[in-house]
Amino acid sequence: MWIHRAQTSDPESPFYNESLLTAEQCDRLDVVLVSPRNPLNIGAVARAMANFGLARLAVVAPYAPHWREARSAVGAPTLLRDARETGTLAEALADATLAIGTGTLTYRKPEQPVVPLPALAPLVAAEFARGGRVAFVFGPEKHGLTREDLSFCHVLVEIPTDPRQPSMNLGQAVAVCLYELSARVNAAPPAKLPAGSQVPSATLDRLGVLIEETMSAAGYSPVTMQEANRHDLRLMLRRLGLTAHDTRRALGYFRRVLHRLRRLR
Amino acid sequence: MWIHRAQTSDPESPFYNESLLTAEQCDRLDVVLVSPRNPLNIGAVARAMANFGLARLAVVAPYAPHWREARSAVGAPTLLRDARETGTLAEALADATLAIGTGTLTYRKPEQPVVPLPALAPLVAAEFARGGRVAFVFGPEKHGLTREDLSFCHVLVEIPTDPRQPSMNLGQAVAVCLYELSARVNAAPPAKLPAGSQVPSATLDRLGVLIEETMSAAGYSPVTMQEANRHDLRLMLRRLGLTAHDTRRALGYFRRVLHRLRRLR
Repeated sequence: MWIHRAQTSDPESPFYNESLLTAEQCDRLDVVLVSPRNPLNIGAVARAMANFGLARLAVVAPYAPHWREARSAVGAPTLLRDARETGTLAEALADATLAIGTGTLTYRKPEQPVVPLPALAPLVAAEFARGGRVAFVFGPEKHGLTREDLSFCHVLVEIPTDPRQPSMNLGQAVAVCLYELSARVNAAPPAKLPAGSQVPSATLDRLGVLIEETMSAAGYSPVTMQEANRHDLRLMLRRLGLTAHDTRRALGYFRRVLHRLRRLR
Repeated sequence: MWIHRAQTSDPESPFYNESLLTAEQCDRLDVVLVSPRNPLNIGAVARAMANFGLARLAVVAPYAPHWREARSAVGAPTLLRDARETGTLAEALADATLAIGTGTLTYRKPEQPVVPLPALAPLVAAEFARGGRVAFVFGPEKHGLTREDLSFCHVLVEIPTDPRQPSMNLGQAVAVCLYELSARVNAAPPAKLPAGSQVPSATLDRLGVLIEETMSAAGYSPVTMQEANRHDLRLMLRRLGLTAHDTRRALGYFRRVLHRLRRLR
């Protein structure tokens, strides 16, 4: 197709557009697809990423035949062949310091802050400004992300659409989200965020597991409660905005407590 | 899919989003597809329109079998079955006071103002504010709009994309354009435009034809020049920002002159 920016990097040209993401920002922005089904949609996502200069795609637990089909399609962009494949969303998000979830907000009370897409760019700009890594998480076509998936996300984003026909096609939703970031991340002043650098998702998960072990060693949680507690704890750790220093301290506290509890048995 | 706005029209709700287009604005915004080929793309365009509350689709000279297939597809939105079908772009744009063209700007020197998509909303807001009708024109997947097609457009829009992979899929490009207008037309102050209401495309075309007849009666244009002259004239009439009053006056002038020239023969 044919809508495009003139091929120029000359800032004097009337076609030069300085609002695109920088190469460094593109390198710190992942698109994560959880269990996508339709090969055409996967191809469309890859194409939209290429249109906006992105190359980092991760796919979580894809349906193998369709994933193979999408990757081997004629004209599939390199980024599709280079995509990371992980078994769990936690692995795909391990390095992310800001995970942005997408999903149905209509019938579900959100457990995280909800940001309309037109207001997202300053948040992402701030995350880039402090050296963070951003991941945009999209769920399967039919049901979207589960409550469990969403608990790995720091914020949820919604595309304002018509209430009579709210649900967008996956390829189009990804195109709209990436367009918005590409056009506006470097156009607006970054949002004010708490000082200090945030910690990667995997570190928060390590802390979560340690806290759970500790509380279990302390006889805190009856087995039937563990799943719900794990969920709430995961959400809380993302909401707190812990710095790297906070996280090291918390890990130290709980390691010490766990060690002591085990010696006491 | 599942990204959407909560179904609420309650302005107190945190999910309420006042930036969507109003019903009246939606009724004055047409999407025009010139000779689309791929039924899947046509379906994707219709879906994006429904997502953003639009219902007015016009299709110019479609490839009949694919057009039939797209319209009769399972789950095709009503707006696809209700789409207008015209033989020429001029007919499809007859009522439009602002026609926005999309196209390759790389290898072609544009003959109209080029507006990056992130800067388009204030222009469209101003057109709505003065009671105009807006049409968004998209060309065939392979080649895009011709130079002749573009000569019916007042402005050209470009989506800022990566120069290495600039060309977007039709369905995704339409989704991105409609998202941008939907999110921002009512969010920003309208651009300052010349006072007075603009005239529908068909009226400008009537004036163009009359001028051409007049100049031909005056022996002005050698036959070999007519096509190029018609093109330049069409562009000029759109660039001038004529009011309804200006147009009536110009029609009066040229009718008089033509009448006189014919009597003198």
